[in-house]
Order: sequence, then C-alpha cells, then structure tokens
Amino acid sequence: MEVTPNHTQTVAGWAAMNESGKVEPFIFKRRENGMDDVTIKVQYCGMCHTDLHFIQNDWGITMYPVVPGHEITGVVTKVGTNVLGFKVGDRVGVGCISASCLDCEHCRRSEENYCDKVTLTYNGIFWDGSVTYGGYSNMLVANKRFVVRIPDNLPLDAAAPLLCAGITVYSPMKQHGMLQSGGSLGVVGLGGLGHVAVKFGKAFGLRVTVISTSPAKEREARERLKADDFIVSTNQKQMQAMTRSLDYIIDTVSAKHSLGPILELLKVNGKLVLVAAPDQPVELPSFPLIFGKRTVSGSMTGGLKETQEMLDLCGEHNITCDIELVSTDGINEALARLARNDVRYRFVINIGGNAKL
Amino acid sequence: MEVTPNHTQTVAGWAAMNESGKVEPFIFKRRENGMDDVTIKVQYCGMCHTDLHFIQNDWGITMYPVVPGHEITGVVTKVGTNVLGFKVGDRVGVGCISASCLDCEHCRRSEENYCDKVTLTYNGIFWDGSVTYGGYSNMLVANKRFVVRIPDNLPLDAAAPLLCAGITVYSPMKQHGMLQSGGSLGVVGLGGLGHVAVKFGKAFGLRVTVISTSPAKEREARERLKADDFIVSTNQKQMQAMTRSLDYIIDTVSAKHSLGPILELLKVNGKLVLVAAPDQPVELPSFPLIFGKRTVSGSMTGGLKETQEMLDLCGEHNITCDIELVSTDGINEALARLARNDVRYRFVINIGGNAKL
Repeated sequence: MEVTPNHTQTVAGWAAMNESGKVEPFIFKRRENGMDDVTIKVQYCGMCHTDLHFIQNDWGITMYPVVPGHEITGVVTKVGTNVLGFKVGDRVGVGCISASCLDCEHCRRSEENYCDKVTLTYNGIFWDGSVTYGGYSNMLVANKRFVVRIPDNLPLDAAAPLLCAGITVYSPMKQHGMLQSGGSLGVVGLGGLGHVAVKFGKAFGLRVTVISTSPAKEREARERLKADDFIVSTNQKQMQAMTRSLDYIIDTVSAKHSLGPILELLKVNGKLVLVAAPDQPVELPSFPLIFGKRTVSGSMTGGLKETQEMLDLCGEHNITCDIELVSTDGINEALARLARNDVRYRFVINIGGNAKL
Repeated sequence: MEVTPNHTQTVAGWAAMNESGKVEPFIFKRRENGMDDVTIKVQYCGMCHTDLHFIQNDWGITMYPVVPGHEITGVVTKVGTNVLGFKVGDRVGVGCISASCLDCEHCRRSEENYCDKVTLTYNGIFWDGSVTYGGYSNMLVANKRFVVRIPDNLPLDAAAPLLCAGITVYSPMKQHGMLQSGGSLGVVGLGGLGHVAVKFGKAFGLRVTVISTSPAKEREARERLKADDFIVSTNQKQMQAMTRSLDYIIDTVSAKHSLGPILELLKVNGKLVLVAAPDQPVELPSFPLIFGKRTVSGSMTGGLKETQEMLDLCGEHNITCDIELVSTDGINEALARLARNDVRYRFVINIGGNAKL
C-alpha cells in the first residue's frame, strides 16, 4: 500500500545505504508542496557530526537509506496558499527539525525541539508517515513553521552551520544568562560548536577562554577567533591557575570524559552546559559539583523562534561560521576527515554548485 | 611549641583514634571563651554519615584523634563581651562550620560554606591553628557567627539533625525555587537527608514522590511521612510511568549510581540536585540530560543566615527529624548500624543524659 501518494517530486540527493560510512548518489521522492509548505532549492548544507553518527548507525536507530543534512540554506521556489511569511526568491534555512505536534506546552512556547513528537529533518517520521530526508539533496519541501529567514548580509554557505551548530550553543547561552557582557566563558573543545560559542561570547562582551586538549590550536583560537585565553586541559598547572575563575562553560566534547577537572574551573554557582552527545556517560565526580554549588545542564538545539532570533543577531553582529566548502564529489572525503575531527571548523557542501549567493 | 596556650578547658568527648571504625572516651582541651565566643553545654548531637566517613578515614584526610559531630544542640553557659545575640540559658545549635574568612564575597553573602577558607566543625584547622573537635563531647566553644538559635517549640534532640541534614536539603530547595506550592518533587533515597526533604516538600505544598530501591519503605513513606507517591527505582514499569512528570529531584544517595534513569523522571527543564557525596563519580548519560534540557546541580550544607532561616521555618511548621535516641554507651553500636543504613532516620546521641529540654 502506498501511504504517501502525493510524494511525486523526484529529487537527487546523497544517501548512506548501509553502515559503510559513505554516501552515494540517490534518487528519491518528496511530497508535493502543500498549502502550508515552502519548497526550497538547496544551495548549501553543513556537515554536522550527527550526520556521521547516523551514516554509521552509531546509535542503532538509522533507517537506511538515510539522506543526512540539517544545516540547510537555499532559496524559496514555491510557497503554499497558506504561507504568508515567505515568497519565491527568499533566502531561507532549515535546521534539525521538520515537524512537531504544534499543540503541546513545548510547541506553544516554540520549544519544538523538546516536543515529545518532534520529527528530525532526516531519519524521522513525518506527519504523513514518510521517512524524512535531509539536506544532502537538491530540493526540500518544508512546513512553513520549520523554515527560517537568513539575514541578507550573511552568505548562505557560512550561515548554513548556524542552523545546528549555532543554535545549539546559542539556546543554552541565552537560557543561562550568558549573553551579557562582563561574564567569563570557558569553551571546551574547539570544533564546529566550540568556534561558534567563542564568536557568540566575544560578540556579547564576555571574556572567553578556550579549553582544548590540543596546544596547536592556541594560535588560531587567539588570533582568528579572538579568544582571550587558551588553556590545555591536560596541563594541570594551567588548569589549576584557572580554578574558580569562570562563570560559565560550554562543553562541546563528544568523547567520553570526566567533568571533574572542568567543573573546578567554575566559580561557586558556576554553570556548565553540555551540548555534545557523548555515546558513553560522562563521569561526574560529586565533590567539585557540591563543593562549588555548580550546575551541569544539557541542551539540544533550539526552538524555531529562538533560531530566527539567533540568525537575526548573527546578522546584526555579522557572525557566520568558519567553513571549508566541499563539492558534492567530495562528500565522502569530507566525512572521512570529519571522523578524524580534521576540519576548520565545519564542512559545507556546495549543493547548488554556484558561487556564493 | 604550644601554639594554643589558651586551650585550657578540659572536655570529655568521644573520639576515633584510628581507622577501626569505633570511637572511645577521649579527654581533650578547648580554648577559653573569647570575646566573640559562646560556650555551649552540649545536650544532643546527631550522627551524620559524614561522621562515619571521617571515623573510617574513607576520604584519606582524617586527622586522628577525631571527635566527630556537627549536628549539635545545647544550652549557652557563657558568652563573650562582644556577644549581643546570645545569653546564658539560650537554646542553640552548631552545624558543620566553625569558621571562615568572614571577608570574601561568599562570607559577605553569608555563604560561609563556600568560603575558600571554611573550617569544618571537626577535623578542621581553626583560626588559632588548632584542630577542631566536634559535638561528640560535653562542651563546645563556638564563635558567635557560627551559632544559631533553636526555636522554642522544637525539642533539642529531634532538632539536632536539622543543623546538617536539614540545611543540606533546604539550601538547594530554596535556591532552585522548590519551596512553592504546586510543584512536584522527587526524593531519591529515604534516609537522614531524604526524610527531611519529604517533610519540607509537604510543608511547602509540593506533591512528593519517594524513589527508593527498597519496596519495604513504601508504607512508612506514605503513612509516616505523608509522601504522595512511592516508586521503586529498580521497577522499570513504575519508573516509565513517571517519565517527564517531576519538576525537581533531590538525590540523597551516596552509593555510586547512574543519574540516567532518574533524570528521565524530570520534565523538560527539570532540576536535579545532588546533595550526597558519593566517593565514586556518578554516571551522567548525555541523552536524558540534553534531550530534556535538564539540570544537575550540587549543593553542600548552607550558610549561617539560611540555616537560621530554615530553623525558624521549621519552628513555624513544626518540622523536626525522626530520630532514634542513643546513649553515649551506644555510639559504637549506632555507628555499626549506620554503616548498614539501619536507622529511621537519624541517630541522635543524648550527650547531656537529660530528659528532653
């Protein structure tokens, strides 16, 4: 039985067919543009570490073939009759979420990301029962609620990772009061998420310290990203010198690790937010937590309203991501490099094949 | 060289001399009552799990002989010339802290418990260089700043554990906004700390669920402590039925455990506070933390101002601890039972040997 008779549009994309860790060209169907839908010609799609997890089935939940990609920017080519906020030619983006119940307390607060029935942009089940396919593809049909506007001054390629990496660090920074000048912020891990956290921190007037396992990153952290301090997390002397010095920490490390030494850097009452999703539980020693009345919170992406707010602020402050542009022929090579964390700081696939829009 | 020439008062107490896990009678000296000091005839002293850790040198920091005890109540017998707040005959208490720097930002906010130079009531180093001795003794000299008043309507025996167990759960409950009616609170572990948390929760109008490994505690949790719900943490069906149902959790379990299943009980944005101090790091799986934007905080006892506030509220609401009174001959037997968690819910030593004061 065909459950999705209106999936009539043929789309070219790139899918992982199995756990090999590679993608290949893949032709599939998308639904017709409905009354509340926006059709988008995809120009760019960022490559998030989550893509790799799904491609490799690291979490055991991948439905193959999987078309990854949830840092999508492009141009509107069609809008439904109920769509007032977008028109053909608009520069737009789609992030991690393609649907939610629209009716629960979380959806009503535009915290769609915490809705019980949230549907991810790929490897999710949409309202009509179809599996969702992501942005490694040349066209997308999205419900208007889950489409955001990209400010005119931001290039669509370097803005793409804001849709996941950007909102993932922005949302907890806002929630925990970090976006006010004068505070001190530690950013653990200088990758896709970390480098955006540094940029937000500097834009909002915080003193930013990068905490990394890799001494080689000091120069770029200071010179390119304007971090105020840099410490190597394995250097006990440097770590001790920073004891009780930070108001906030954003921890972006997805490898298994102990939060103990990092928590010691926080002042009493300091707040650490874990935004990565390590497969293994992190170790939480009780002493640095209780002796400093410290807090460890989690956060997962953000809602649509705050995603738009974040993009608008990025427009005002001219914040984009530092990216390496990849052609569609180079996706597998980029995936291999991503697996080694060999990227400064985000790969973005040039899906449209055009110059910067 | 005698560093403490004014330690002239002979005191009878009970000390652990080594790691055997037992205490024995011990005669030692305390300082003369100084201008800012209050001398207290100790009537009662609660037996906290921390006493056992120090007696056994579990944390490797015990200075033998150690006179434990930081849940101390008694009657003022002398006050220094600078002491205005207390007079002879007053019913008072001393908790975990006997000194701090009095000058840092934490001391200025009466968060003496987070002062870098905090001195614990026993096994600490006082301003004069002497080792502090706790409440398993018949007399105490305390600086006025670290003495609190016990409300008239509270018996000194059942009030004693409020000085540690009480403030340990009260402080984070206040800080995280739990003390307002309408919310739902989970209390993990029904011991000295847990049973007070249940009482505070009920007094302030929360719906309280006890989460325990021990089904045998259901009846007393509901009947004696008036808990609204009781679930067994190893019963997956009961745990699943409570998914996303609680606003707050107080975790009082000092054994190594994973926070994962407990975090799942919290609503989005829910807050868990760890008030125990497990020797081993607790396991913190990232998914329940980030998918629910949940928070894990630590907290360690409380400051003096909020300790007094807590006692006054206990007076208003007539809250005391459920205790088993122990004679000074029975301390070692009680310690052995404490090691097995065989106590409902706190042992209190009848130091004064008198009837309830």
